[in-house]
Amino acid sequence: MLNYKNYFDVKTLDPFTVEKGFEAVRYEAQSGTVGYYHLPKTSQALVDELKSVYHEIDRRFNTIAIVGIGGSSLGIKAIERLLRPNTPNAKNFVYLENSDPISIMSEMKQIDKFRTLFVVISKSGGTVETLSIFKRLVASFELKLENSDQIYVVSDEDSILSRFADENNLRRFVIPANVGGRFSILSAVGMVPLTLAGFDTAAILQGAQTFLDRFWNREEEHMLKKAAYYVTHSEQYPMNVLFAYSDTFEEFGKWVVQLWGESLGKKNRRGERVGLTPISLIGSVDQHSFLQLIIEGPLNKTVTFMHVEHSEEHLMIPNMSLKHLEKSDFVNGISFNALINAQCMATMQSVLQSGVSVDEIAWKQIDEGSVGEMILYYELLTSISGALLEISTYDQPGVEIGKLILAEYFKKSN
Amino acid sequence: MLNYKNYFDVKTLDPFTVEKGFEAVRYEAQSGTVGYYHLPKTSQALVDELKSVYHEIDRRFNTIAIVGIGGSSLGIKAIERLLRPNTPNAKNFVYLENSDPISIMSEMKQIDKFRTLFVVISKSGGTVETLSIFKRLVASFELKLENSDQIYVVSDEDSILSRFADENNLRRFVIPANVGGRFSILSAVGMVPLTLAGFDTAAILQGAQTFLDRFWNREEEHMLKKAAYYVTHSEQYPMNVLFAYSDTFEEFGKWVVQLWGESLGKKNRRGERVGLTPISLIGSVDQHSFLQLIIEGPLNKTVTFMHVEHSEEHLMIPNMSLKHLEKSDFVNGISFNALINAQCMATMQSVLQSGVSVDEIAWKQIDEGSVGEMILYYELLTSISGALLEISTYDQPGVEIGKLILAEYFKKSN
Repeated sequence: MLNYKNYFDVKTLDPFTVEKGFEAVRYEAQSGTVGYYHLPKTSQALVDELKSVYHEIDRRFNTIAIVGIGGSSLGIKAIERLLRPNTPNAKNFVYLENSDPISIMSEMKQIDKFRTLFVVISKSGGTVETLSIFKRLVASFELKLENSDQIYVVSDEDSILSRFADENNLRRFVIPANVGGRFSILSAVGMVPLTLAGFDTAAILQGAQTFLDRFWNREEEHMLKKAAYYVTHSEQYPMNVLFAYSDTFEEFGKWVVQLWGESLGKKNRRGERVGLTPISLIGSVDQHSFLQLIIEGPLNKTVTFMHVEHSEEHLMIPNMSLKHLEKSDFVNGISFNALINAQCMATMQSVLQSGVSVDEIAWKQIDEGSVGEMILYYELLTSISGALLEISTYDQPGVEIGKLILAEYFKKSN
Repeated sequence: MLNYKNYFDVKTLDPFTVEKGFEAVRYEAQSGTVGYYHLPKTSQALVDELKSVYHEIDRRFNTIAIVGIGGSSLGIKAIERLLRPNTPNAKNFVYLENSDPISIMSEMKQIDKFRTLFVVISKSGGTVETLSIFKRLVASFELKLENSDQIYVVSDEDSILSRFADENNLRRFVIPANVGGRFSILSAVGMVPLTLAGFDTAAILQGAQTFLDRFWNREEEHMLKKAAYYVTHSEQYPMNVLFAYSDTFEEFGKWVVQLWGESLGKKNRRGERVGLTPISLIGSVDQHSFLQLIIEGPLNKTVTFMHVEHSEEHLMIPNMSLKHLEKSDFVNGISFNALINAQCMATMQSVLQSGVSVDEIAWKQIDEGSVGEMILYYELLTSISGALLEISTYDQPGVEIGKLILAEYFKKSN
C-alpha cells in the first residue's frame, strides 16, 4: 500500500463534484461500457495459462521483442523498468516502436533470431509503424510465418492483424473491445510479454485489485478529491507535473503522459477544447533543470511528488572528507537513497512555500503490488477527471486526420 | 545550414520588439556580461590543445565517465546521442548524474577502472550529487587522487572543486565566470570529454560560429520573430513544444528543456512570475501519446516540428504484401526515413489545420556543423526571449531554497 497526501486545499471543493466523479466511474464499470476495471480479475486466468507454458518458453528464448508503439509498448516498458531491479533474471526486452531507422537497426542488432520471441501488439491491428517494422523483421531474419511458434500476436478480436495470425496459425491473444490501448496494460498486452519474461504478473494484478476494492469501498477518497481539484482548477493550472524521484520512473512517467494527455485533451460535448497537460520529471536530475520554472515561473502547474522509501540498492556515501570539498560532508555516511528522499522532501517543501498546489505519493518499496496499485490509481484518476470534464475519455479522434493525410501523401506520390 | 520556417502570423509583431531583442543580445555579447557568444571562437584553442594529447588518451582509455548533473551532463549527452551514428568509434560514455542508487550501481558496473577517464564537472564546484558520487567512485575503485592522470576536473576558476584539483595536482579546465552552466556546452564542459572521446568538436564550433556570424549580419531574422512571437503570446500560449522526429533527439530535447525552462521561469523586475514551459516530444512515437492533446485540447501551446532529411541508416520497408495486412502496403518499398519524414509533414499539417502556432526546423542531415548551429540557435532564442520578458536569464535563484532546506535537514538529524 502506498501513502497519498494532498497538500492543496480541498475544503472548498463541491461535495457534489466528488460524488459525480465516483458515480461516473461506477457506472462505467458496472455497465461494462469501459472494460479496464475488470482486468485485474479477468486477466488472472490468462496469467495462469501463460505460467503453464513458461518453462517451455524459458528454455527456448532469452529475449522478448515487442513490436508495438504507444499503448502497445509504454506500459510494458514502464513495468519492466520499475521491476527489473527486483527481478534481475527476467528476460531481456527489445522494443521496436518508432519508425526511426537508427533505432530499428540498433534494436535489430540485439536480436538473435533463434533465441527471440516476437510479440506483435496493435489494438487496431493496422498501426503503420508496427506493420512496417514487422515486415522488416520478417525479411531481415527470414522468419517463417506459417505455424511459427516464435511469433505471438495481441490485437482486437476481429482486426486485420488477428486475421493474419489465424491465417498463419499463430498464437494470438485478444484485447477486449471495451479496453482502450492506453488502458490495456493489464490485459494480454502487458500480461503476455511480462509473464513470459518471468515477472510476477499475478502479484501486479493482485495489487491492482486490492486498490480497486478499496476505491469502490470509498477508502481512497483522496483521489476523488484530487481529480475534482484538478478539473475545477483546470484553467488556472492547465499543467500537471509528476516529479518522481528515481530514474526507474522514467518510462512510467511516459505511460502517465500518454494516459493523461490522450484521454483528457478533447473537445467537450459543447465543442469547447478542454484538457490538462501532463509533464513528467525525474528527481533529483530535474531539480537542475525544470525546478526553477516551477518555483518562480507562473503559478500554472500542480505538482505530484513521488518517492520510494526503500531502494533495492543499499549504496552508501562514503565517510570520506576531501580537502577543500568539506562542504559536502554533511551527507557523509548516509545512503544515496536517504539523500534522494531528503532531496524530494526539501524540494517539495520549497515548492509548497512558493504557493504551488502539491500532493505526495510515497512508495514503501517498488514491488509488484505497488506497481499494480499505481497503474489503477492513474487509470482511475484519468477516468474520474474525464467524467468531470464531460468528455469522451476513451477515444482519440484528433489523431485520425494526420493518418489520412499520410495515406493521401503516399497515394499521390505513387 | 538548416532550414527554418515560421507558419504563425508575424505580420502583427511590433518591429520595435524585434529590434529590442537583437539589441539586447548584441549588448550582452559586446559588453562581455554574457560569455557564451564567444565560446565558438575561444574554445578552438582548447580543442587544438586537446587534440595534441588525444592519441595518448586514446591508447589508455576506452570509456569516459562524466560525473556531473544538469548543465554539466545534458549537453554532452545531447551531442553524443546525435553524433554517435556518424562517429560509431567514439569512446563509450558513462554518466553518473542522479543520486538514485540503482542508476549509480548500474553505471559503475560498466566501468573498468584501468580503461576509464573520469571527468568531474561542476560549475559551482559544490553540487551535492556530483561530490557524493565522486567520493563513491574514489572508494569503490580505490582511485588514487594525488597526481592522478585519470581524473580531470572542469569547474569555475576559484571553486572548491578547482582548489581540490590543484591540491592534488589534477588536470583541470575552467568554465569562464560569465558562462552559465546551461549555456556552457561549448566551453570545456563539452569540449574536453567530447574531443577526447573522438568527436569532431572543431566542426561543431565552426557550425556554431557560422550561424552566429549570420545572426549578427541579420541573416537569421526568423528567430528574432519567433522569440518576439513567443513572448508577446506568452499568456495565450504558455507552453512551447519541440516535436523532433528521431529518437536521437531525446537528450537534445532535455537540453532544450533545461535551457528554456530554467532561463525563462523567473520573477521579472516588477516581481511578477513569468515564464514559458518547454515540452519535448519525439516523433513518431508521441503521435501515439501527446498529439491528441495538441490537436483537440486547449490552444495553449506552440509547436516546433523538427525533422532530418537524410538518415545515417538506409533501412527500407520491404516490398512485401502479407495476406490481411495489405492496408499497410502503401508504404512498401520506401525507406523508414521517408516514412518518418512523411509522418512529420502529415502531423504538422494536421496540427496547423487545428489552429496551433507552428514552426519548422529542417536538418539536411545530422552532422557536426548542424549540431553546432542548433546549439547556438536555441541559446540565442533563449537569450532574446529572456531580454523581451525583462528577466535575469542567466541565474536560477528559485532553486537555492531547496538546497538550504536540504542542508538544514541533515544538520538537524546529526
